[in-house]
Amino acid sequence: VSITRRTLLTAAAVSAAGSVASGKSDAAAATVARSQGASASLKPYRHRRIATEEAFTTPALAEAYKILGRTTTSSNLDIAFMKSIFDDPTPGSIRDEFRRRLLDLDTERLAIMDESGVDMHLLSLTIPGVQMFDADTALDFSVSANDALAEAVRRHPTRFGGLACFAPQSPRRAAKEMERATQNLKLNGFIVNSHTNNEYLDETKFWPIFEAAEALGRPIYLHPRSPSDGMAAPFRNYQMSGSIWGYAAETGTHAVRLIFSGVFDRFPKLKIVLGHMGEAVPYWLWRLDFMHARRTAEGMTKKLQLTPSEYFRRNFAITTSGVESHDVLTYVVNVLGVDNVMWAIDYPYQPTQPAVAFMDTAPLPPSVLAKVYHQNAERIFHLV
Amino acid sequence: VSITRRTLLTAAAVSAAGSVASGKSDAAAATVARSQGASASLKPYRHRRIATEEAFTTPALAEAYKILGRTTTSSNLDIAFMKSIFDDPTPGSIRDEFRRRLLDLDTERLAIMDESGVDMHLLSLTIPGVQMFDADTALDFSVSANDALAEAVRRHPTRFGGLACFAPQSPRRAAKEMERATQNLKLNGFIVNSHTNNEYLDETKFWPIFEAAEALGRPIYLHPRSPSDGMAAPFRNYQMSGSIWGYAAETGTHAVRLIFSGVFDRFPKLKIVLGHMGEAVPYWLWRLDFMHARRTAEGMTKKLQLTPSEYFRRNFAITTSGVESHDVLTYVVNVLGVDNVMWAIDYPYQPTQPAVAFMDTAPLPPSVLAKVYHQNAERIFHLV
Repeated sequence: VSITRRTLLTAAAVSAAGSVASGKSDAAAATVARSQGASASLKPYRHRRIATEEAFTTPALAEAYKILGRTTTSSNLDIAFMKSIFDDPTPGSIRDEFRRRLLDLDTERLAIMDESGVDMHLLSLTIPGVQMFDADTALDFSVSANDALAEAVRRHPTRFGGLACFAPQSPRRAAKEMERATQNLKLNGFIVNSHTNNEYLDETKFWPIFEAAEALGRPIYLHPRSPSDGMAAPFRNYQMSGSIWGYAAETGTHAVRLIFSGVFDRFPKLKIVLGHMGEAVPYWLWRLDFMHARRTAEGMTKKLQLTPSEYFRRNFAITTSGVESHDVLTYVVNVLGVDNVMWAIDYPYQPTQPAVAFMDTAPLPPSVLAKVYHQNAERIFHLV
Repeated sequence: VSITRRTLLTAAAVSAAGSVASGKSDAAAATVARSQGASASLKPYRHRRIATEEAFTTPALAEAYKILGRTTTSSNLDIAFMKSIFDDPTPGSIRDEFRRRLLDLDTERLAIMDESGVDMHLLSLTIPGVQMFDADTALDFSVSANDALAEAVRRHPTRFGGLACFAPQSPRRAAKEMERATQNLKLNGFIVNSHTNNEYLDETKFWPIFEAAEALGRPIYLHPRSPSDGMAAPFRNYQMSGSIWGYAAETGTHAVRLIFSGVFDRFPKLKIVLGHMGEAVPYWLWRLDFMHARRTAEGMTKKLQLTPSEYFRRNFAITTSGVESHDVLTYVVNVLGVDNVMWAIDYPYQPTQPAVAFMDTAPLPPSVLAKVYHQNAERIFHLV
């Protein structure tokens, strides 16, 4: 993307900015744009671009996933994903490209970032992370993956941030690793891939994990994986278990379970990040509120301190990963507020250039674009 | 609602109309409003109000549901719903009110409609319809329920339309009943409550049902029920199986299965109606398209004639039932087009007056409001 192209794209975004109810008028937006040099000045402004859901893996985990992909004794839906990517995919296929790019933290990744003017990847271990191993193995893998991640950030401190993984199989040891990863390794937060052995994090045995995240002041990115065994059946046809549909059903359900469990009354400062435009939870806020209020009034359900939508706006933030629709972007900025939406590519699963173009042409005022492109991520993940 | 109040509400809607990208400018919208008398003329215009997802049941089915609610040998999630409503709910409770209102087709229902200026209920048998009985029993119940529905429409021809139920347990006999219900009984289309015995309608054994609907030129309303047994597990906590979350996961998944199965290549004129703002499928159109295109390019999946979003805009229409959010309404009108969205209350489960106020204050131009309030329903359901 040339400077000239960027300037044009920014100008287009400014001219379209009036259609979002952000509190900025067209005129105000244009003023901000001018003060930032978006009109044809000598040094056009472009926003810092921090992509917040960018995957990697380690050679040891890639090898372990390859073995898991060959098991015939599990009906877990993620097995097929691991097999397709890590078990010698056809050279030149997109699965082969995914595998190569997941393992690279120094060359092709940085070149692709440079090509599209992406300043930073907030890195996180790709699905299913360490969540399909026994507790001891998972803990060991989480330590070594976090060490490798911290090492990559140290090699490229201006280009990478990192979200630490942890092993929910052993919640108290997970909390210790979360502390080490942020205090010692200086990683920026945490990532977990939805269910672990078909159990969800609202179960109180997992709450030491939330206690640690809240105490450390760092968010947990609740990343998808395929539906747990207990909800898998209708997703086994038409390859519906993954990114095309199943991820959202699984992860949205997990997020709603967290809300109704009362996790956020116990940990009011806990911050959960959802990818994929919030896994459709933002679409349902009105209905969640209405039905929860009725059930509470009827004494049918546990009373919570806030409404579901209040928790969603206070305790969640979302990213744009894998949903490059301006209609959805406008919707979530309006409904959740300008401080709760962050940009993400979902590298290497989504191509970088379209994800940048999606943002550069977004009908948002520059002040809002700045929040989504980098300021919200800087605040939420403590990125510098 | 007095004429004066209606006038004010319409005027408010007109003044807010500019914020939706419907192709109508503020000025054009105001012109339409004036020509329709929305300004303070002597005879203020109000749109005809056709509510399209309005539930009823018959005494025989209410009695059968009461018995089913007492079974201890089924893990089906709808059992609890049936027990709560049909097994002698606490007098004065909202469940008691639901039961009473479901059984009434002549008095309280019409009074509530009149109170809020609702012209017509498009009636349909409440969940789980006839879908939890053996094939013969289900067929018998479908015939008697459709007869009762047609009788109610004959008693109140200007106030009611009706969607016929059918028994998917026996697809060829269902097709015959669908023919009888539209040709002989003059009902307006069909309703089915998602899965039947944990099977989804994309399975080819059910396709005689789609063949009949297409040949008869009438839509099928794909109404929710709770998640099928194979996806039920994570919905068993926090009462998440019903309207608050599970209905959408179940029914959205069903709709997406229909798309990927190729049903709409075989039956290109088939029309499916989804309630609850499309069960979130409209939120996912970009991702469905992107992932399906990639999989098709990689030869990983069945090739379809259209993209998922093209099917959704061609073969689906949605209603507003149970989601009274102007943000969502604006989103779906923009994304699906003004001809694909219809108003619904979800009587008796949602209160009528707020559902009317939601529409009367909607930020839509009067021409679009007219389509959502009645014109689209008139066209899609052949209502006069």
